[in-house]
Amino acid sequence: MPQINAERLLNDLRKLRTFGAVDTGVVRPALSEADIESRRWLKTRYEEAGLDASIDGVANVFGRSRNDGPALIIGSHSDTQPRGGWLDGALGVIYGLEIARACAEDSGTAHLAVDAVSWQDEESNFIGCLGSRSWCGTLDPVDEAAAKGRDGTPLADALRAVGLDNVPRQQFEDGRYVGYLEAHIEQGAYLEDADEQIGVVTAIVGIRGMNITFEGEQNHAGTTTMSRRRDAASALFEVAHRINLEFPKIADERTVWTIGSTNIEPGASSIIPGFAEMALQFRDQDEGRLDAFEKIVGELVGEINARGKIKAEVASARTPIRPSNMADKLQDHIAKAAEQTAPGRWRHMPSAAGHDPMVIHEKLPCAMLFIPSIKGISHAFGEDSHDKDIVAGCQVLADASATILKDARGET
Amino acid sequence: MPQINAERLLNDLRKLRTFGAVDTGVVRPALSEADIESRRWLKTRYEEAGLDASIDGVANVFGRSRNDGPALIIGSHSDTQPRGGWLDGALGVIYGLEIARACAEDSGTAHLAVDAVSWQDEESNFIGCLGSRSWCGTLDPVDEAAAKGRDGTPLADALRAVGLDNVPRQQFEDGRYVGYLEAHIEQGAYLEDADEQIGVVTAIVGIRGMNITFEGEQNHAGTTTMSRRRDAASALFEVAHRINLEFPKIADERTVWTIGSTNIEPGASSIIPGFAEMALQFRDQDEGRLDAFEKIVGELVGEINARGKIKAEVASARTPIRPSNMADKLQDHIAKAAEQTAPGRWRHMPSAAGHDPMVIHEKLPCAMLFIPSIKGISHAFGEDSHDKDIVAGCQVLADASATILKDARGET
Repeated sequence: MPQINAERLLNDLRKLRTFGAVDTGVVRPALSEADIESRRWLKTRYEEAGLDASIDGVANVFGRSRNDGPALIIGSHSDTQPRGGWLDGALGVIYGLEIARACAEDSGTAHLAVDAVSWQDEESNFIGCLGSRSWCGTLDPVDEAAAKGRDGTPLADALRAVGLDNVPRQQFEDGRYVGYLEAHIEQGAYLEDADEQIGVVTAIVGIRGMNITFEGEQNHAGTTTMSRRRDAASALFEVAHRINLEFPKIADERTVWTIGSTNIEPGASSIIPGFAEMALQFRDQDEGRLDAFEKIVGELVGEINARGKIKAEVASARTPIRPSNMADKLQDHIAKAAEQTAPGRWRHMPSAAGHDPMVIHEKLPCAMLFIPSIKGISHAFGEDSHDKDIVAGCQVLADASATILKDARGET
Repeated sequence: MPQINAERLLNDLRKLRTFGAVDTGVVRPALSEADIESRRWLKTRYEEAGLDASIDGVANVFGRSRNDGPALIIGSHSDTQPRGGWLDGALGVIYGLEIARACAEDSGTAHLAVDAVSWQDEESNFIGCLGSRSWCGTLDPVDEAAAKGRDGTPLADALRAVGLDNVPRQQFEDGRYVGYLEAHIEQGAYLEDADEQIGVVTAIVGIRGMNITFEGEQNHAGTTTMSRRRDAASALFEVAHRINLEFPKIADERTVWTIGSTNIEPGASSIIPGFAEMALQFRDQDEGRLDAFEKIVGELVGEINARGKIKAEVASARTPIRPSNMADKLQDHIAKAAEQTAPGRWRHMPSAAGHDPMVIHEKLPCAMLFIPSIKGISHAFGEDSHDKDIVAGCQVLADASATILKDARGET
């Protein structure tokens, strides 16, 4: 079985951190100078690991094993949030590199095909999961043509600026892959709270977002009696609070929903609001529960409308993301490896945040492994994990990779 | 008894409307060019009515009867909202002028002392009720020194610009007045809905404003479970909706409350709000009921705090305005006169909006008369009233003025 090199793993992670380092965090959005430099460095590391390395036309970095399949492709993304943490994405990228090296160094696994990858723009500078979409052939040309970075630069200009406009884009080779594996920090505090070391991801939750608007009548807050009022904000408060009363009745302990923003017009203390709107988002791994939430919202809004004073409407605020189930068989391999390295200190769990496997699972079986986030912090400079957890997670994924590939080759 | 001249009354009202006219509305904020021009015109009209006319150091315009007291002072304000209606304030000012004229023209009332007035800045360009406060001696020098107009001009500069910086400010002459009378449009729709013509104001409602803040913890809307959340906005929605459920239990048909603005931070659909605040205002003619509302708010906020997740706080958002009771005896005179002109078509009613008598009633007995507002519209260009109601209201107030003064002189 492959033995990962903890020092080499941590050194490469720390080196990747230097590209775009700001305080304890990293500013390395997709196609920034720091991003491209880090990808050139990664390509060199892939080459040094004996992989066939390349950067494709959207700046995905591939390190392809010279061994024939069945192969695994292992990695994550090395672009960051505008002000991101040092491990989000980077951890999974360096795991892919280290697992390819560790397998190559062990005579019992050197024949296995482990490809490593760093996807581009998982963090939505231009298009969320741009790189994995491109690789899977599911990047919408219309979306791509319209895509602009957070600074307003069109995607095509940004690619031209880094010399990638005429570089081919790679797509996945049919028949080569058993699956895709990705490790990630948890970004929550379940594992830390339970003193556990490994999460085996069951599914990436589905997300729906809706915008609920309320139209009433703006009027004088002194002279308009309560019975004559058509107060848009009061209707909003009622729907918002009743969502918070109704959703728990069908939620499980992982279900989340958030009313993160409201807008009340005209927004003066002496004027009855004539218009109000709120953004509601909910996430769950069960599509049926997401449907049930949408039904509740529809009923509450219907109740407001039936009173005949306020006109309430619900609209989708985003394209719904369906729950992405991780492959059972791959989960089993990771679970077995986790029990070996961290006996009794691992669990199955969904991912509440989005990741590239949301895109890739439509084409290939996928699995994900989580390690604990200190205090659950992520998408912030304070994001961190303990070295011992970083090392343990990589060993677990290396062991699982070896057994997955041996299994696929009929060697077990 | 005095007979008002309907044509003269309406012509003067329409003339006053021309100062600052915009579309069907009026833009004549305190100390604007249009405001000062209109006050100079009014002073001339007072003189033509045989009154001793003057503009004082805050631009109050006085038309003082040459008759000895007991006197009434009758008027309102001729400054307007930034985009105001043509009758708000103006109606009561021209009533004062017309009643002084009508009394002077009738041999049975020519000996009565009717002073007319137009107060300055009831509409809070610099300081709400600046003129009546100055006349009553209750203008706070600290407030005055800090006062700036909506365009940022300090009050002192604005007074200097119109040549009033060295003009004396008049204060009310002790012993002269039986009381102050003011007519106004209703600014609501009670009278119109009931097909009534006159409202005899019982009290100007008290107003309290509070700002309620909620401090929670900002966090990731995907990875933070509901049980770990400290969602400031959800606490706000609960308190807001429960206010709307609890207040009606002790409100009467005139009580009003408004949550007119909210602020939720950071205000993004994928982030749990760490901070939220709302403005709550409530108005009632009963101080005890205002206290009871404040108690309810305190209990709701206390309940949130007791759960230990959100820190909620209540603070006064404005200096509370106590309910201002109108003088019973003056009300009786107006009610009798109303029954004569509009038999069965008048009522006692509180004023839900603020007016100069809130200031003046601390020094003199006050009474107010309302006429119907078409569709209840006010503080807007669409504000209007029917000519027949304008005329009837003036006759009622003229009749009441005569009986009040005769009564005070022991002539009845």
